[in-house]
Amino acid sequence: MTEAELNARHAEKMKKVQAARARMMAGKTVERGLIIVHTGTGKGKSTAALGMVCRMIGHGMKTSIIQFIKGAMETGEQNLFDAFPDLVEMRPMGEGFTWDTQDRAADIANVRRAWDAAKARIMDPEWKMVVCDELNIALRYDYLPVEEVLTVLAARPADTHVVITGRNAPPELIEAADLVTDMQMVKHPFRSGVKAQAGVEF
Amino acid sequence: MTEAELNARHAEKMKKVQAARARMMAGKTVERGLIIVHTGTGKGKSTAALGMVCRMIGHGMKTSIIQFIKGAMETGEQNLFDAFPDLVEMRPMGEGFTWDTQDRAADIANVRRAWDAAKARIMDPEWKMVVCDELNIALRYDYLPVEEVLTVLAARPADTHVVITGRNAPPELIEAADLVTDMQMVKHPFRSGVKAQAGVEF
Repeated sequence: MTEAELNARHAEKMKKVQAARARMMAGKTVERGLIIVHTGTGKGKSTAALGMVCRMIGHGMKTSIIQFIKGAMETGEQNLFDAFPDLVEMRPMGEGFTWDTQDRAADIANVRRAWDAAKARIMDPEWKMVVCDELNIALRYDYLPVEEVLTVLAARPADTHVVITGRNAPPELIEAADLVTDMQMVKHPFRSGVKAQAGVEF
Repeated sequence: MTEAELNARHAEKMKKVQAARARMMAGKTVERGLIIVHTGTGKGKSTAALGMVCRMIGHGMKTSIIQFIKGAMETGEQNLFDAFPDLVEMRPMGEGFTWDTQDRAADIANVRRAWDAAKARIMDPEWKMVVCDELNIALRYDYLPVEEVLTVLAARPADTHVVITGRNAPPELIEAADLVTDMQMVKHPFRSGVKAQAGVEF
């Protein structure tokens, strides 16, 4: 096949792809708040939530980030958020990983406190996105009943997005969610002795 | 088991987890620029790259975003970046999806132009992170030889991070990368007629 024939065939094929996509997109007309879940063992769960927060800031919409369990989001993003105090808050409510506290009763109390804070933001229509960072870990350890979370999500204002991150998202939450991504680890630099680095991990 | 016994057993178990983690982390001492790949069919590839860009901004380190193929990153992030003109640039070099242009020769020329721009930023030590957004799609269509990309990555300054996004990352790139996450779609709101929304998708 000559280059010209290759190009002509490409144009023909892409015309069909374009038409198929146009048909698909024409059916997408609904706008509403989404329940978004980032789960899996790979990197990128909190990082992709951070990316959405940045888009919200760019659109002038208020976002609250409630950190369950530990400070997965840290210095880099806090410095950035400091430039937009009216649009974003980051509230670290946990006290480190559960293997650092080694205190189950304290962990449960912290999760309860964090969930109360998250609930208040979710139900307040002024906040358009609430990120419950590492909530899945608290659900996984049964520090909070998933039914309680689902009840609040179902009762939230119609245009509020809620983003929930962490490994091992419970099946009931995945069932209730609109957008679920499973971040799978293919390769991790820790394996070759590389430590967590500014800009990438924090 | 009583609540007190449960708590005591938890503390014992977490002490062991903590010790194992401390041993693991003690071996992580290397700091260097990483090759990071976000691939897979799910959401979050460009969004997680955006999250890393925000961390870089927070640390005062310069990032260049080169958009291959199409404007996957748009209004929300551009508005945010406008607040940090000295730290971040976003350069849309593509002209829409290949099914929109329907012009293979023009697509190849655009990819070449975008790659030249990316290469210049990657080799310039002033830029500490370069995001090649949707480069994988260009590689997938053979618009650019993967060997050419690998040669530049291998020759880059030691502390420069390069983030490459897009479906179907070629095996040679995954082999060369330090950190690879496969974002898998579990659920997508398009399926229930929901359209792309501010803050989430753009």
